[in-house]
Amino acid sequence: MRRKGLFIVIEGIDGSGKSTQIENLKAYFHEKGLDVVVTREPGGTRIGEKIRGIVLDPENQEMDSLTEMFLYAASRAQHVAELVQKSLDDGVHVICDRFVLSSYVYQGIARGIDLEIVKKVNAVAMQGLVPDITFFINIDDDEAFRRRAKRMSSDRIENEDKAFHLKVFKGYRELAKDMENVVWIDGMKSVENVTVDMTGHIDGKI
Amino acid sequence: MRRKGLFIVIEGIDGSGKSTQIENLKAYFHEKGLDVVVTREPGGTRIGEKIRGIVLDPENQEMDSLTEMFLYAASRAQHVAELVQKSLDDGVHVICDRFVLSSYVYQGIARGIDLEIVKKVNAVAMQGLVPDITFFINIDDDEAFRRRAKRMSSDRIENEDKAFHLKVFKGYRELAKDMENVVWIDGMKSVENVTVDMTGHIDGKI
Repeated sequence: MRRKGLFIVIEGIDGSGKSTQIENLKAYFHEKGLDVVVTREPGGTRIGEKIRGIVLDPENQEMDSLTEMFLYAASRAQHVAELVQKSLDDGVHVICDRFVLSSYVYQGIARGIDLEIVKKVNAVAMQGLVPDITFFINIDDDEAFRRRAKRMSSDRIENEDKAFHLKVFKGYRELAKDMENVVWIDGMKSVENVTVDMTGHIDGKI
Repeated sequence: MRRKGLFIVIEGIDGSGKSTQIENLKAYFHEKGLDVVVTREPGGTRIGEKIRGIVLDPENQEMDSLTEMFLYAASRAQHVAELVQKSLDDGVHVICDRFVLSSYVYQGIARGIDLEIVKKVNAVAMQGLVPDITFFINIDDDEAFRRRAKRMSSDRIENEDKAFHLKVFKGYRELAKDMENVVWIDGMKSVENVTVDMTGHIDGKI
């Protein structure tokens, strides 16, 4: 039987460099000749991508926060059951762009849903799966707003106002301190150095 | 301030006569000069109808039971927050085709998700709202299968096999016995008599 794959989650705000780092981590696994799947939430499965379409559509302005939480949970349940758990069981490593920490931060802290409710609902969606490593890429608030200004804001969550995003920035730092298996990464470093920091942590686990 | 509207839910399998009875109840409220909204789950709101599109699409065969439960919960949360509670607060009566009993029966009993989990998740989605009356229209199993044979089966849930539907029939009868405010209606009676049975119960409440 093959050894189980590692479940690696990349967390941080849009603009923190997640996509670039995910590409670099993928290359790192390939260079080692290891099987790796890159995926994302919401989404990652055919049904999950349809749910993503609803939850991020800027047209859906009237969406209630609880609806939003349940749609993320629905996408997560499908993702874990259909793709992530099976890949890990097959010995394939999984790199996922956002996972449950995003729900705690965005729906719990920023939307203001009782964090205990967000945790209970997501515990059901996760079906017992916990990431082996969650990298939280932290950048300064000022840098975050500079990068946001340069990006094309295109989804319902990213279109939220500055107060919302400040809650997100703060929420990430608060929750990333105490959560299991979270590794804090300094996203103010160069792209190369951020990658080195991340692969250093992975090296010890594969 | 106007008196709060009544929240009336119609439950039962497809083919039990829900749609016909809902039309008759709507006419009953109109004859009395009372404001009434007719709605349904999943759906009832713009976002809810999009969720309905995903959850009932026969193409989405690979949907996990937990995903299904969360999608119904998402639609319900939006429905309660956007339409049902506001209508009731405005003194408008609400007649809803399916509500939480359907989730207990279909996701809990028929799909086999732990009923306590289904109840906890839906308690969040319901935001404290409990129907004033839930009419459960019961028909015999044989009659149910006869009516099913005549209907065009068109959605993912209705396309399930006979064993699934037998669990649904049995589950409704089991859960309808103990649930708060559930009124058991004999759907084997004539359409007119079923309507009389239902309006008799409503008469005492408005």
